[in-house]
Amino acid sequence: MKRIHNKDDIVQVGLDIVLSRGFTATGIEAILKQANVPKGSFYNFFSSKEEFALAIIDKYVAERNELFYPIYSDNSLPPLERVKRSFQTLIALFAGEDCSKGCLIGNLGQEMSDQFESVRQRLDQALQKWSAELTKLLIQAQKENSISADLDAEMLAENLISSFQGALLRSKVKKSPEPLRNFVHLYFDRFLLPREEK
Amino acid sequence: MKRIHNKDDIVQVGLDIVLSRGFTATGIEAILKQANVPKGSFYNFFSSKEEFALAIIDKYVAERNELFYPIYSDNSLPPLERVKRSFQTLIALFAGEDCSKGCLIGNLGQEMSDQFESVRQRLDQALQKWSAELTKLLIQAQKENSISADLDAEMLAENLISSFQGALLRSKVKKSPEPLRNFVHLYFDRFLLPREEK
Repeated sequence: MKRIHNKDDIVQVGLDIVLSRGFTATGIEAILKQANVPKGSFYNFFSSKEEFALAIIDKYVAERNELFYPIYSDNSLPPLERVKRSFQTLIALFAGEDCSKGCLIGNLGQEMSDQFESVRQRLDQALQKWSAELTKLLIQAQKENSISADLDAEMLAENLISSFQGALLRSKVKKSPEPLRNFVHLYFDRFLLPREEK
Repeated sequence: MKRIHNKDDIVQVGLDIVLSRGFTATGIEAILKQANVPKGSFYNFFSSKEEFALAIIDKYVAERNELFYPIYSDNSLPPLERVKRSFQTLIALFAGEDCSKGCLIGNLGQEMSDQFESVRQRLDQALQKWSAELTKLLIQAQKENSISADLDAEMLAENLISSFQGALLRSKVKKSPEPLRNFVHLYFDRFLLPREEK
């Protein structure tokens, strides 16, 4: 039997379980068992379950950045198309898992924001950073006149992410990617487009 | 000491606790203690914690309908204004609670959709019904040309609700009602408005 004693492996296994079951419902024992780590060694790596929560958030954000950055920096595509592709990439991953799990940031935001201030702050930072990346692309898109120039790009980026999270939640309850596809259609084929000149 | 033995009181107390802490983290004992109900009597009222979850969803939906229906049917206001007011009413309630708790439908949707099929279905029905009410008002608004007539009103209603849920989640993580206010501004002052004729 393969033995794993690595902190990173505990974080990876924990991330998968927390995505499926939620944080509160995830027992440390279940994680250690699945990661093949002896009971008791959890506290060699983490001072508390709260510190463990921060570690899985950092891991999730790092994984998602690896997915997103090549899309954000793909100069062969117009900036608005890159924003759209980044959402479509996430939607394809989610749909491929039968519309279960969802986004760790949204899930923990819902579950933990009123419980642990450190977790809330880490999630807030992750969402701000995501929003900052999209803001840069939306400003470029405004310069190219592919979206309305009179909208506040920062407000729009935050709204895009939160509406995506809402559509993800709706798809999870509906067990269908349709609300996510409608989100992409409405925003990118309609809401964001420049309005006709009078 | 006041003794409460009523099923409705257990549901009311349970609803408040689940809104604050989440479903999994809420122990039946904590609810019974706060409702002044003797231990063991829970199963006189509910066959399982799952059945209890359905009861608190029904209670929450009934309370929200009491809030919404007078707004939906207020003929002194244009239909689109009624939709806007219904969201603003929810936002004021949420902001009044320091942007904590959130919406039970969204919270349980996030937490329970992959756990209990009966709960997922009940939440899906509640969201469908909410969407159907908004669809009627949006169709009226289209007839008055206060929103774009070429958008699918049903798709739009579902998207409005899911984007609201996403903004609620963002506000919960940010501990500020700003994302919710931006949602109202972007949708009602911009996204939904009819586009200029060419």
